[in-house]
Amino acid sequence: MSNLIPDLKSGPLDFYRKKASFDWKKLKVFIETEDIVKYQNDLYSVIRDHPDYKVDKTVLSTFDGQRRVATVQAMAQKSMDQLALLNTIHNLKMPPTATRIMMQVSPSATIKYVVGDRLFSSAIMNMGTKRHMKFISDMEEGKIFGCYALTEIAHGSNVRNMRCTATYDKQKKVFVLNTPDFEAAKCWAGGLGQLATHAVIYAMLVIDGHNYGLHSFVVPVRNPKTLLPHPGVIVGDMGEKIGLNGIDNGFIQFENYEIPKENLLNKLGDVTDDGKYTTPFKDPNKRHGAALGSLSAGRVTIAVICETMGVKALTIAIRYAGVRRQFGPDGKTEVPIMEYQTHQHRLLPFLAATYIIRNFNTYLSEVFYQFSIDRMMGIESEDGPEKGMEIHALSSASKPVVGWTMRDAIQECRETCGGHGYLKASGIGDIRNDHDANLTYEGENHVLIQQCSNYLLKLWPHVLKRQTISSPLHSIDFLTHGLDILAKKFNARSTQEICCPNTIIEIYQWLVTYLLKISHEKLENQLKSGKLQFWAKNDTQVYYAKSLAVAYIQHFYLQRMLLLISESPDEAVRNVLTRMFSLYGLWSLEKHISTLYRGQYAVGPELPELVHEAILKLCADLKDDSVSLIDSIAPPDFILDSVLGASDGMVYKRLEKSIKGSEYGMNRPRWWQDVVKFDLKNKL
Amino acid sequence: MSNLIPDLKSGPLDFYRKKASFDWKKLKVFIETEDIVKYQNDLYSVIRDHPDYKVDKTVLSTFDGQRRVATVQAMAQKSMDQLALLNTIHNLKMPPTATRIMMQVSPSATIKYVVGDRLFSSAIMNMGTKRHMKFISDMEEGKIFGCYALTEIAHGSNVRNMRCTATYDKQKKVFVLNTPDFEAAKCWAGGLGQLATHAVIYAMLVIDGHNYGLHSFVVPVRNPKTLLPHPGVIVGDMGEKIGLNGIDNGFIQFENYEIPKENLLNKLGDVTDDGKYTTPFKDPNKRHGAALGSLSAGRVTIAVICETMGVKALTIAIRYAGVRRQFGPDGKTEVPIMEYQTHQHRLLPFLAATYIIRNFNTYLSEVFYQFSIDRMMGIESEDGPEKGMEIHALSSASKPVVGWTMRDAIQECRETCGGHGYLKASGIGDIRNDHDANLTYEGENHVLIQQCSNYLLKLWPHVLKRQTISSPLHSIDFLTHGLDILAKKFNARSTQEICCPNTIIEIYQWLVTYLLKISHEKLENQLKSGKLQFWAKNDTQVYYAKSLAVAYIQHFYLQRMLLLISESPDEAVRNVLTRMFSLYGLWSLEKHISTLYRGQYAVGPELPELVHEAILKLCADLKDDSVSLIDSIAPPDFILDSVLGASDGMVYKRLEKSIKGSEYGMNRPRWWQDVVKFDLKNKL
Repeated sequence: MSNLIPDLKSGPLDFYRKKASFDWKKLKVFIETEDIVKYQNDLYSVIRDHPDYKVDKTVLSTFDGQRRVATVQAMAQKSMDQLALLNTIHNLKMPPTATRIMMQVSPSATIKYVVGDRLFSSAIMNMGTKRHMKFISDMEEGKIFGCYALTEIAHGSNVRNMRCTATYDKQKKVFVLNTPDFEAAKCWAGGLGQLATHAVIYAMLVIDGHNYGLHSFVVPVRNPKTLLPHPGVIVGDMGEKIGLNGIDNGFIQFENYEIPKENLLNKLGDVTDDGKYTTPFKDPNKRHGAALGSLSAGRVTIAVICETMGVKALTIAIRYAGVRRQFGPDGKTEVPIMEYQTHQHRLLPFLAATYIIRNFNTYLSEVFYQFSIDRMMGIESEDGPEKGMEIHALSSASKPVVGWTMRDAIQECRETCGGHGYLKASGIGDIRNDHDANLTYEGENHVLIQQCSNYLLKLWPHVLKRQTISSPLHSIDFLTHGLDILAKKFNARSTQEICCPNTIIEIYQWLVTYLLKISHEKLENQLKSGKLQFWAKNDTQVYYAKSLAVAYIQHFYLQRMLLLISESPDEAVRNVLTRMFSLYGLWSLEKHISTLYRGQYAVGPELPELVHEAILKLCADLKDDSVSLIDSIAPPDFILDSVLGASDGMVYKRLEKSIKGSEYGMNRPRWWQDVVKFDLKNKL
Repeated sequence: MSNLIPDLKSGPLDFYRKKASFDWKKLKVFIETEDIVKYQNDLYSVIRDHPDYKVDKTVLSTFDGQRRVATVQAMAQKSMDQLALLNTIHNLKMPPTATRIMMQVSPSATIKYVVGDRLFSSAIMNMGTKRHMKFISDMEEGKIFGCYALTEIAHGSNVRNMRCTATYDKQKKVFVLNTPDFEAAKCWAGGLGQLATHAVIYAMLVIDGHNYGLHSFVVPVRNPKTLLPHPGVIVGDMGEKIGLNGIDNGFIQFENYEIPKENLLNKLGDVTDDGKYTTPFKDPNKRHGAALGSLSAGRVTIAVICETMGVKALTIAIRYAGVRRQFGPDGKTEVPIMEYQTHQHRLLPFLAATYIIRNFNTYLSEVFYQFSIDRMMGIESEDGPEKGMEIHALSSASKPVVGWTMRDAIQECRETCGGHGYLKASGIGDIRNDHDANLTYEGENHVLIQQCSNYLLKLWPHVLKRQTISSPLHSIDFLTHGLDILAKKFNARSTQEICCPNTIIEIYQWLVTYLLKISHEKLENQLKSGKLQFWAKNDTQVYYAKSLAVAYIQHFYLQRMLLLISESPDEAVRNVLTRMFSLYGLWSLEKHISTLYRGQYAVGPELPELVHEAILKLCADLKDDSVSLIDSIAPPDFILDSVLGASDGMVYKRLEKSIKGSEYGMNRPRWWQDVVKFDLKNKL
């Protein structure tokens, strides 16, 4: 195992590493599998040795430098064998592993690569036909650069109200693209800002004045030889962003811009030469859904991205907490700040959350990729549509919940690093600013999560009838016994009992069932009182449908984690993972306590104290394991690149080097003489 | 009133402005007073016309540009009559007003001014004597630049373990300063990085091998003519930070660096020529406390800064929510996103929190400044020491709570602005990154808040004995009836009842008393079980002492707000402020529901649903007022400087101008030819 996983350097972190209750390498191999650890090592060494990944940091201090580096690195990803789709689909743990590593190395470059060329080609694969394959091969050969443009300035979530049009001209056999005004400009398309030569554009297909709804087209936007826009195309960059500035997010407007009829991606709908519209779909809603299908991969991937950002931040904060000493019982010998209850409580539940979510992400990625491959190969199993819906519900709830959880984790990491966490060299600021995009792209979280609650709300009538409820991934199976579950009461009487995984799963099952019940009732009552469906739905979100979707996905995270734990052959590993399970479970349940009382699942005064004491005990039990737990999932130092979080724990040595070596470190500003000349008296 | 407060431009926001239940100008004059509105106008016009505040934005795109602009603007603040201390102390609402405005205009410059020259001079005023006054006059004349350096690289919170030494040399009559290693370097000092010529330095005073504890010295660090460090001084910049990059935070180390004996700030302790230590304090702890006294002003001011950052973010998010339309009941006409329950619930409690906290901040600033002026003038009232302790407790709880509340508010604002909120031009990213520093400087929040719980924990024995408890600011007076309060039960039976201010105050009084009781008991039990005081205290923080301090300060916020509301002569103003009171009160109480059950204040299942329904109703009632509520506290557009938040609501016009006008907007990168030449085939 030591050949597979190199030892970590001895240093101040030995204090905790020596106290760990388990072998961090065994844990790593267990959660990753040996093949994946080898794949990680392989990818690490490719990146370590790649000339385009040796970046002089001063280049990154300018906006233009960030752009250039991200462009070069995105191109480099195209040529890495380890990332090529065909090389990774034989082991479906590989795609999420690749996402994790590449996102930790350089988020802008990776997203540029994924939402540029890869989303361009997958959209063409999904919605195009044979005649469009040349775009993919041109892109793969580097002759053209692709991107994907759906969102408009004034319409993001509400795609049906988009206003860019593609009007068919029978005489010329072309589509004429038009953007009525800036509010209808396509925007945020990654890769479009400065470089893309071709874009998949969604526009309303119009024939003879009739609007046939949203369709997609391959649109040449810039001359590949000059990168200048074609006449009739107004295209440009969105400007500086909070983070991810390496990506050239762009906007585009069209003025009577003609494209060949063949550029319509015509799998889902087509137009004959003389202007007749044809589609294999009878239901226009289904065609609309299929046209947006390529977005679901995004949600699954974004959840992995979020988790991976959290891992990076937690690596920094936990190692720093193991090194940083402050105060002590005798006023002289100081203790590491991880010894403090507040500190444990601020960090360890997020560490537990990360483990639980990471396991779920790996699982959902595998399921999703297998599902997509099957579909592409024409293998449609009997439960295919149901599985599609379940994946949709799970990813629609998980993307927001992982995003929020990791947002809070990163922020807590930032704050637990104290003042030095505010240094750019800590790395946490960039992690936060890059992660921030995850919270609003690919579906506004509060809109997206309704996809999940809508899926669940339909189940309540079946629960009431005591019908068997079962789904391909088993996330809703327990609802078969929904009415029995609702009759149960909280009955744990000790912290030991409440930490027991079965107790936690039972509480969660009651919680999901109860939230389903009251959300359904609330919706029905509002409809009965005369509210329009639109408003009744909207007014059933807070405390009801939203909480339902959150509890449902948390329950499923736990359900999957329990399966993982049961598969471990190592007792020490099982024990530490079980503690993490319980900590995450109880800490998440804590936010639902008022619902437990509302539904009279809890009646006496015991539950809150038991939950609180159990959480504190689990934190105290896990503190000695925390450094080794993070070691098992941390990226190598050259990727982490933080003065506070390196694996050798040499925080102060690195701080000194970073501070004294900075461009501004020991020099006067070039305008120092203006300062010296400043004289307030003369000025007055 | 229209002369005093200019009308806002008509536009898309009229939709909500016309629906407001009150006159936003009346509200503004009521919460500010007429004199303060005039003062605001005066300061606005000074800034608007000041040449140093007309900044070309491209200058700010570089680190060096930000430094230069902050330096120039900090110098400009020195010469603004409106900011001069003597011009503002006749109306103690002026200092927080000035902080609010200047922090909204340019945070880096303002903090540079405040923590540089102003903290330098106040430290000298507090701890120095006549012989040091020349440093203040030199600083005021612009001959020298001051700064204040306490924190060391390895010691922030634990100041008693600092390791920089000042050893008295009898022969030479000098102090010799030494920094044993980089871990003992002073750091984070604002203004020290590139420019300061003089620093107030805290060091351990050593005479003949005996350490007399932390003392402060005025230390010349750079030559004012050349800005080069004096020999024996190693000084430099901390490097890039997450935000506030205009400030040159610095570090400093000393190598046998001699300063004249007279540079010891000798009010709190002195050394005779022949090396005898003298001090007016019998208790060294009291001297230590007095030496750090200048930090309390920081906490009061930081709470104002936090609030002001929140106001800026909320102005952007609420106005954007009033303009941005998405979806609608008939699928065609779209409604502003403020119409959605989720959106109201995400933003309006933070708006309410901001009003309530803003009122408290104004109050505490007035009290604190009056207290400091009295003390400086030698007017020591009978309740002076008690008042000092109460101010200390209040500011130690409020700085963290305001910081956390505004952190969450800003983040929610960022997310509610969707994708466009991720643009730098939205302004929210910079607000978040600048605010972030508030969470860790001037006392780590979790350490700081213990100052407040320690103050409260001492009161429990008095509660038990039913003694009269009373404090100068009346924040703890209700504890006189602590035992009676604990006997009460929750008895509201409708949303109307639970929204009633008295009900909310009653619940809070029970909550604070109960948390005081269980925290005290927990601490006692741990001591009895044999834990050291140090560990018993630390292990009583989460769910106990920390929650106690939070509930206590929230109760006092509400108590002060109720007083303000009672003073309004306008019914509409009273009504809207009461709704905000109830919303903040219940939304804050929501996080304490488990404690209400734990202590059996609530017994049946009713409370959670009542709280939830009341919050949703208050949000719905306030949505039409939200734009006008923010208008009353928003900064003018030229200060807000956000494409999404301008008062005319012309979001899309501004977005277009910003995007198309950006440096990168419509241009190819200068390295475009490298991209065109790229050929994956050849590369492979």
